[in-house]
Amino acid sequence: MRMYDLIEKKRDGGELTEEEIRWMLQGYVAGEIPDYQMSAMLMAIFFRGMTDQETSVMTDAVAHSGDMVDLSPIEGVKVDKHSTGGVGDKTTLVIAPIAAACGVKVAKISGRGLGHTGGTVDKLESIPGLRTDLDMREFFDAVNRTGLAVIGQSGNMTPADKKLYALRDVTATVNSIPLIAVSIMGKKLAAGSDAILLDVTCGSGAFMKELDDAVELAKKMVQIGEQAGKRMAALITDMDTPLGYYIGNSLEIIESVEVLKGRGPEDLREVCLALSSNMLYLSGCGSLEECREKAREAIESGAALKRLADMVQAQGGDPGYILDTDRFARAPYCGKVTAPRDGYIVRMDTAGCGTASSMLGAGRVTVDSVIDPAAGIILKKKTGDAVKAGDVLAELYTSKEELLADAQKRYLEAIAIGDDRPCEKPLILARVEGGRAEIYQP
Amino acid sequence: MRMYDLIEKKRDGGELTEEEIRWMLQGYVAGEIPDYQMSAMLMAIFFRGMTDQETSVMTDAVAHSGDMVDLSPIEGVKVDKHSTGGVGDKTTLVIAPIAAACGVKVAKISGRGLGHTGGTVDKLESIPGLRTDLDMREFFDAVNRTGLAVIGQSGNMTPADKKLYALRDVTATVNSIPLIAVSIMGKKLAAGSDAILLDVTCGSGAFMKELDDAVELAKKMVQIGEQAGKRMAALITDMDTPLGYYIGNSLEIIESVEVLKGRGPEDLREVCLALSSNMLYLSGCGSLEECREKAREAIESGAALKRLADMVQAQGGDPGYILDTDRFARAPYCGKVTAPRDGYIVRMDTAGCGTASSMLGAGRVTVDSVIDPAAGIILKKKTGDAVKAGDVLAELYTSKEELLADAQKRYLEAIAIGDDRPCEKPLILARVEGGRAEIYQP
Repeated sequence: MRMYDLIEKKRDGGELTEEEIRWMLQGYVAGEIPDYQMSAMLMAIFFRGMTDQETSVMTDAVAHSGDMVDLSPIEGVKVDKHSTGGVGDKTTLVIAPIAAACGVKVAKISGRGLGHTGGTVDKLESIPGLRTDLDMREFFDAVNRTGLAVIGQSGNMTPADKKLYALRDVTATVNSIPLIAVSIMGKKLAAGSDAILLDVTCGSGAFMKELDDAVELAKKMVQIGEQAGKRMAALITDMDTPLGYYIGNSLEIIESVEVLKGRGPEDLREVCLALSSNMLYLSGCGSLEECREKAREAIESGAALKRLADMVQAQGGDPGYILDTDRFARAPYCGKVTAPRDGYIVRMDTAGCGTASSMLGAGRVTVDSVIDPAAGIILKKKTGDAVKAGDVLAELYTSKEELLADAQKRYLEAIAIGDDRPCEKPLILARVEGGRAEIYQP
Repeated sequence: MRMYDLIEKKRDGGELTEEEIRWMLQGYVAGEIPDYQMSAMLMAIFFRGMTDQETSVMTDAVAHSGDMVDLSPIEGVKVDKHSTGGVGDKTTLVIAPIAAACGVKVAKISGRGLGHTGGTVDKLESIPGLRTDLDMREFFDAVNRTGLAVIGQSGNMTPADKKLYALRDVTATVNSIPLIAVSIMGKKLAAGSDAILLDVTCGSGAFMKELDDAVELAKKMVQIGEQAGKRMAALITDMDTPLGYYIGNSLEIIESVEVLKGRGPEDLREVCLALSSNMLYLSGCGSLEECREKAREAIESGAALKRLADMVQAQGGDPGYILDTDRFARAPYCGKVTAPRDGYIVRMDTAGCGTASSMLGAGRVTVDSVIDPAAGIILKKKTGDAVKAGDVLAELYTSKEELLADAQKRYLEAIAIGDDRPCEKPLILARVEGGRAEIYQP
C-alpha cells in the first residue's frame, strides 16, 4: 500500500477501505507516513468529506491507537457527556453530580481549556487540594464509592488523535466535520462508557456557528457511537451568549454550586436539566419526562450537591469550598465594563468574551500559560437586556492589575448594542437520536 | 504573516496577495515553512485553483528563487520552445536547427526524461562526445557561433520549483493546472528567452488527457508569459499516438535527421513545420504563412541539417553521426511484437508504449537508471492502420536480452485492435495566442 495512492483516491472523491484507513493511521503514528503526506490527506478530506463507513473505521482506529480504558471494575451503567466547548460552559460540574445522585456512574476523563474555551479539569483544580491525576485504580475506586469522578487525560490514550490534531492545528484542517467527529468520538470510545450524551454547542462562542453544521456533526457522532455499540444522543445547545453569568475557574465552580442549591441563573439551570435528564434517559432511568423529574428531585433534595462534595473529597479536595463557596479567594483587582450608550444588547461575540477572560489569566493564551483560578468575568447584562449608558455590563477579575485594560477593551468589543430588542432564541436548539434530528423552533 | 492564515484563506477560496505569495515561497525555500504546511496549501490550491494574478506572481517568485539566466551576451532574438512531454517527441532536434537556420537564436536549457517521456538531453547524449554540461560562457559562445545550443539544467535555477515539485510528487498534487503552469513557466522565465512557444501535448501519452484541460493550461501559460513581457503562443498537439515511428534516444536522433533531410514520417514532419513556423513567427520573421515557407526552405536547402551538425560539433560531439546516422551503434537484441488478430489499430495507450521503451533501457525507471542509448522501439503500425494477424506491429531493441519479454508484453497491452477504422484526428488540435484559443476540427 502507498500513501500516495490513498491521497489520490480521497482527492478524487473515492472511499477509503477499512484496510487502507487502519494502515494509514498505524503508519502515521509509527512515523512511517510523514506529516507532509498526512496534511495533504487531511486537506483532501476537508474538501471531499468522509462517508459514514470511513468515519466509523477511522474513529475506531484512533480509539485503538493507544490504551483503551476498561471501566468494567465500575459497577452499573457508565454514562459520559461531551461538550464541543463554550464560554461559561460549566455543565459537567452540575450534571455529573445529578446523574450520580440518580444512581448512574459518571467516570469522566476530561480536557483542559485552550483559547477562549475553559476546561473542566482547570475549573476543578481551582478547589484547593483537588487532584485530577488519579491513577486508574484510584479513579475506579472513587467512582464506585461516590458515583462520579473527573480526571485529566493521561498515559497513552489516543496518540493518533494527539498527532493528527497537532497537525490539523497548523494546517487549517481543524474545521472539518468528519475530522472533528473522529477526534471527539475516538477519545470517547477509548474512555469506555456505555452511554454518551453529546452537547454540541452552536453560535458565536462555539466551534459550530451554524445550526445545520452542528446538527450534521451531532448526527455523525451519534452514528459513530451507535456503530460502536454505545447508547447515544446529542443536544444542540445555544452558545451565542455565554452560558450563565460567571466565566472563570473558581467563578464557574461557584455558579455551578448555586444551581445545585436550586438557585443560579435560569439559562444554566435549564440547560443542565436538559442535559442531565438526557444522560439519565440514555442510562435507562425511564422516559425523558421521568428522567427530568428525577434530575429536578436530585437538586431539590440536596442529593446532587452532596455528590459533588463527596467527589471533591474523594479526589483529595476540601469539600468545605463546595458547601461554602465564600471560602474561594477573590481576585484582588476588579475592573468594570460599562455601556457606552442606551439600547439593547443585540449580540455578543461569545468567543470574544472568552478571550477577554483568558486575557485576565483564567485561560491559556499559550499551552504553557499558568491559570489564575480566581480570574474571570461576572456578567451583569446579556443579549436581550436593556441597558442605559454607564450601566455596568460586566465585572472583570484578575490577580494582575496590568491585565485589566486590554481585557476590558476586548470585552467591550464583543458586545453589540442596538436600538431594538433582539428575538429570543431557545436554549436547546435541537436534539439528535437514532439518526433523526428534532429542531426546536423559538 | 503566518502560513496558517494563508492556507486558511486559500482553503476558503480567497486570493493570495503578491506579498503573501512571495513571503510563502521565500520562507519555503529557506526551510522556514515546513513541508506539511506547504502540502496542505498545495492540496487547497488543487481544489480552489489560482487566479491569473496569483499564478503570475507565483511564477515570478519561482523564477527568481534562484539564478536568472541573462541571455544578453547572445545577439538577436532568442526563442525557446517547451513541450509538456510525450512519446517519440523529438521535435526540438528538428525545429531548433530550423529556427537557427532562419537567423533566430535558440539557447535552450532542457530536461532529462523520467517515466514514460524522453528528455532532449538524454537523446543528445547518445551522440558520442556531445556534452550538455557547457558552462554559461561556452553556452553563449556556442549559440553566437552556430545559432543554437542545448544544455541541461545546472547550478541553482528555480530551487523553489525543485522543492515544490518533489513535494507535489509525493502528495498527489502534481495534477493541478495552475501549479503545472507555474512550474513550467517559472523555469522558462528563468531561462531568459524573449519569445516562448509552448507545445502542450494532449492524449494518452501526455499529461493532459483532455483538450479542454490542455487549452486551459496553454492559456494560463501564455498569459503568465505575456504578463512577464514575453512573446507567447501555444500549440496543442496530439499525443494520442506516439509522434513519428522511432522511440528511444539514438533512434530519435536518426528520425529527426530524416526529417531534416526532407524525409521522415508525415506526422512528425507536419508537427515540426507547425512548431518551427510558430517559433519564427514569434521571433518576428513575418506572417505564419511566410514563416512556414522559411521553415520548409531551411529543410529543403539542407541549411537546418547543417545547423544541427554544427551544434553537435560545437558541443563536442562528432557531427559525422548526423551526416551518416548508420554510424550509430544498433542494439544487439531485437524482439518483434505481432498482431494477435485481423483488424484496425483503434487506439494506442501511448504512455504504455513509452513505458515499454523505458523497460528496454531507453528511459529511467528510477532517477538513478543508466540510459541505454540504442534501446527503443521502431513502430511499424500506428492508430488507423489495418493489420492482419501475425503482422509486425513494432520492433523492440535493447542491449539486454532479458528485458525483451516484459517490454513486448507491455507494448502489446498498449495496442487495441478493433474491427472498424477509427476517425482521423488533426495533429494540431488548437492554437492559443493573446488569450484566444483556435480549435481545429478534424
